[in-house]
Amino acid sequence: MPSAKIKYTDGMQFVGETGSGHAIVMDSDTEFGGSDTGVRPTELLLVGVGGCSGMDIVSVLKKKHQKLTGLEVNVEGKKAEDYPQKFTDIHIEFIVKGKGLSEEAVKRAVDLSMDKYCSVKATLEGTAKITFSYTLVED
Amino acid sequence: MPSAKIKYTDGMQFVGETGSGHAIVMDSDTEFGGSDTGVRPTELLLVGVGGCSGMDIVSVLKKKHQKLTGLEVNVEGKKAEDYPQKFTDIHIEFIVKGKGLSEEAVKRAVDLSMDKYCSVKATLEGTAKITFSYTLVED
Repeated sequence: MPSAKIKYTDGMQFVGETGSGHAIVMDSDTEFGGSDTGVRPTELLLVGVGGCSGMDIVSVLKKKHQKLTGLEVNVEGKKAEDYPQKFTDIHIEFIVKGKGLSEEAVKRAVDLSMDKYCSVKATLEGTAKITFSYTLVED
Repeated sequence: MPSAKIKYTDGMQFVGETGSGHAIVMDSDTEFGGSDTGVRPTELLLVGVGGCSGMDIVSVLKKKHQKLTGLEVNVEGKKAEDYPQKFTDIHIEFIVKGKGLSEEAVKRAVDLSMDKYCSVKATLEGTAKITFSYTLVED
């Protein structure tokens, strides 16, 4: 089962240790009493959905023997103004770089992640409307 | 607007940079072609909900002039077996340490986070059933 242990250190700083054994420093900005020494907890949802879908796409393109040379995932979120300020919209932009990439293979990889594999996207879309786009770049 | 840029490095390793300017290394375990150099993307949802609620509780208890000496947040998630394996259940356990803490103040702080303030919890509960518990420890 996925798990995490988060410990308060000082100010608004927390250190999270994941079940896989890696640590993440979180902090709020100075406006909320923090010192900006680490990520905002809400940002982790966006990093997570970008990493999750990115791994799916790399995995599918490797299986399809595509010459991938780079992948960037840009994620933007929009939160409600009223508390609890949940995410209402998330857009994910994939920039797929490679040599002679098949557009069909890239479309298939992106669609498989978005529709079938990405557990973070599937979890977040219970609340947020998630949209995505992709661009191929010849490298 | 919260945002993140995630870049593929090698293997299954990605580096995410958040809008606030902090970086997180993600990787899969060796079973899925990774090298376990960083967190799993799905774990970020659990770290995020622990950090978000932890910050709320620290903030409320400070306003109530409570002598907080420590706070641990343990988060466990359960995912569906079928793809996309979204989170079905998340339990958050708060261990609140302090000197002469008021049980009423702690209960109020936890309830305010869970019911009103924590945007990560509010986002995840569109999909996952979220439960929580808390314990006071005299320090």
